Amino acid sequence: MSNEAVRAIGGEQVPYFRTPEFSEVMFENERLMLQFAHAPEGSRVCFMTTSGTGSMEAAVMNVLSPADKAIVINGGSFGTRFAELLSLHQIPHHEIKLEYGQPLKEEHLAPLAHQGYTALLVNMGETSTGVLYDMPMISRFCQENGLVLIVDAISTFLADPFDMERLGADVMITGSQKALACPPGVSLIVLSPRALERVDCHHSVSMYLDLKLALKNGERGQTPFTPAVGTLLQINQRLRDIEAAGGVDSELKRMKMLSQDFRQKVTVLPFEMFTVSPQNGVTALHPTTTSAYDIFTVLKDEYQIWVCPNGGDLRDRVFRVGHLGALTIDDNTTLVHAMLDMQKREIIK
Amino acid sequence: MSNEAVRAIGGEQVPYFRTPEFSEVMFENERLMLQFAHAPEGSRVCFMTTSGTGSMEAAVMNVLSPADKAIVINGGSFGTRFAELLSLHQIPHHEIKLEYGQPLKEEHLAPLAHQGYTALLVNMGETSTGVLYDMPMISRFCQENGLVLIVDAISTFLADPFDMERLGADVMITGSQKALACPPGVSLIVLSPRALERVDCHHSVSMYLDLKLALKNGERGQTPFTPAVGTLLQINQRLRDIEAAGGVDSELKRMKMLSQDFRQKVTVLPFEMFTVSPQNGVTALHPTTTSAYDIFTVLKDEYQIWVCPNGGDLRDRVFRVGHLGALTIDDNTTLVHAMLDMQKREIIK
Repeated sequence: MSNEAVRAIGGEQVPYFRTPEFSEVMFENERLMLQFAHAPEGSRVCFMTTSGTGSMEAAVMNVLSPADKAIVINGGSFGTRFAELLSLHQIPHHEIKLEYGQPLKEEHLAPLAHQGYTALLVNMGETSTGVLYDMPMISRFCQENGLVLIVDAISTFLADPFDMERLGADVMITGSQKALACPPGVSLIVLSPRALERVDCHHSVSMYLDLKLALKNGERGQTPFTPAVGTLLQINQRLRDIEAAGGVDSELKRMKMLSQDFRQKVTVLPFEMFTVSPQNGVTALHPTTTSAYDIFTVLKDEYQIWVCPNGGDLRDRVFRVGHLGALTIDDNTTLVHAMLDMQKREIIK
Repeated sequence: MSNEAVRAIGGEQVPYFRTPEFSEVMFENERLMLQFAHAPEGSRVCFMTTSGTGSMEAAVMNVLSPADKAIVINGGSFGTRFAELLSLHQIPHHEIKLEYGQPLKEEHLAPLAHQGYTALLVNMGETSTGVLYDMPMISRFCQENGLVLIVDAISTFLADPFDMERLGADVMITGSQKALACPPGVSLIVLSPRALERVDCHHSVSMYLDLKLALKNGERGQTPFTPAVGTLLQINQRLRDIEAAGGVDSELKRMKMLSQDFRQKVTVLPFEMFTVSPQNGVTALHPTTTSAYDIFTVLKDEYQIWVCPNGGDLRDRVFRVGHLGALTIDDNTTLVHAMLDMQKREIIK
């Protein structure tokens, strides 16, 4: 959900972008992204015209190499994607496979200490199940073992606290369509000085996903190829809106309040929380009496409310309610009322 | 320049896309793209959330392999990009280097007949100089020599006649922001049955640019990763607008009329046409008495009119006037009047 100011930009002509004016917008985007991510001094941002997966692949290709030995946390479909990317790019790795919806624990990591690993990849929020991993615990393990820490924060940035410097994270990836609440089509990669050094040493096997090219053009506030100019202008509006409303801490507070309000209201329905460690941006619910996919379909077709269905094994077990973007307490009430109405109509048993 | 209906979509909330409704939009996009490209029976379209370069690279990576031996026409910066992509992906190739602004001639191709070449890559319009290459001549050469023909039609599709079947072209690439007149962020690849066979045999070294994945998801009207949903809805509007206004032939007629009108009106100024074989979508002009870059700057800052400057060697010699999208005869008049005013003010000598 985008706010009105962001949507208004979407309705305008897209300006030509090889101009000092657009470079200024991009410099401001970089400055605010670094500030909101609490990135260490000397960090940089790449703006990619791709989905989040494009940036996940760019990070794997440009920051890692077959000389690395990586650990990847796999507790859902986005963890699986990181593992597949590591395989495709021939980077040796060990997968920590978690049961869907379950948190990562100290005991999963402990046996991997001092085993020659060089990097760890994690989806801070595994959006497919709504799990928020324990980042301080992961960070301690990485710092003790000198691991490069690559964080997919696509669904958590601006929704759950993230301090890149304190966590010692080297790469943070996010997307335009999650808490940035803009249309999809742009993803963003924040790189620490240590990650930048690695990018500089590696040879990218793709021109389009080459972060060296992106960084070089970024020095003048530009991108190597025509970017999604309109979406980058919308991101600028949204970042400035957050700054004007008190910065990242106010936004995090608002998100926490919004998700807690929903989780409290939804307790009247015969649903279980799918995870004990949920992210603020999404609530994954397991309806104990009705197909999750049927609930998604009826909400869409009869109430014009969109929740997220799951695919594969979880299709009938889990649906997800997003809290990101321009949503309000009233939207929570509307959704819960719709589901109570479905209960009255015996669609939800 | 986007029309009002396309802009209005940009101002709306972007809907969730893993739905039958969005699949229908994508099926219609594919159907109309195949129809407007005159693609042979059995062709398919990939919708990539990338700039045109992303699709150029995807075509090189997925359709060609190091077992090929390619010819690439290089008459400007986009030809150079194709050559760089071939080098990066280790595909043996011969470059036909043309002087900027000059057309390709029979004598450039003749010596390369029967030399074991397997593919030819060309930017049908070399946008950096406005040259339209002689596609029927290139097509004859490719058919006589059994070459796979890969055509970057980013700036020519819907502006200059293109018949994929008659030309025997195997790949046609275009972008959302040229004659499709939508915001940038999506590129499109039309693949002939022969190209599809090649994609099927090759192993892609990038997940994000893997056309096998795109084709497989396309069978159900979807994309492997979150696409630029809003832009794809805008493309749908634009394709349906063209269909409603009489189809691709009417659009081509309109584009030809528009560019000829401008070229006739601009003869009163001390400019030379930079090429003898211009595309309909862009007019590259060489001002004989004034810096081209200064003309671009003054038009932007003092008249709020945007023409395209050139980079590198051509910076002061050439500027380009685009004719793509929702432009009219009146826009031509406005621009020529502005430049006549600059002449009166002795900015143009």
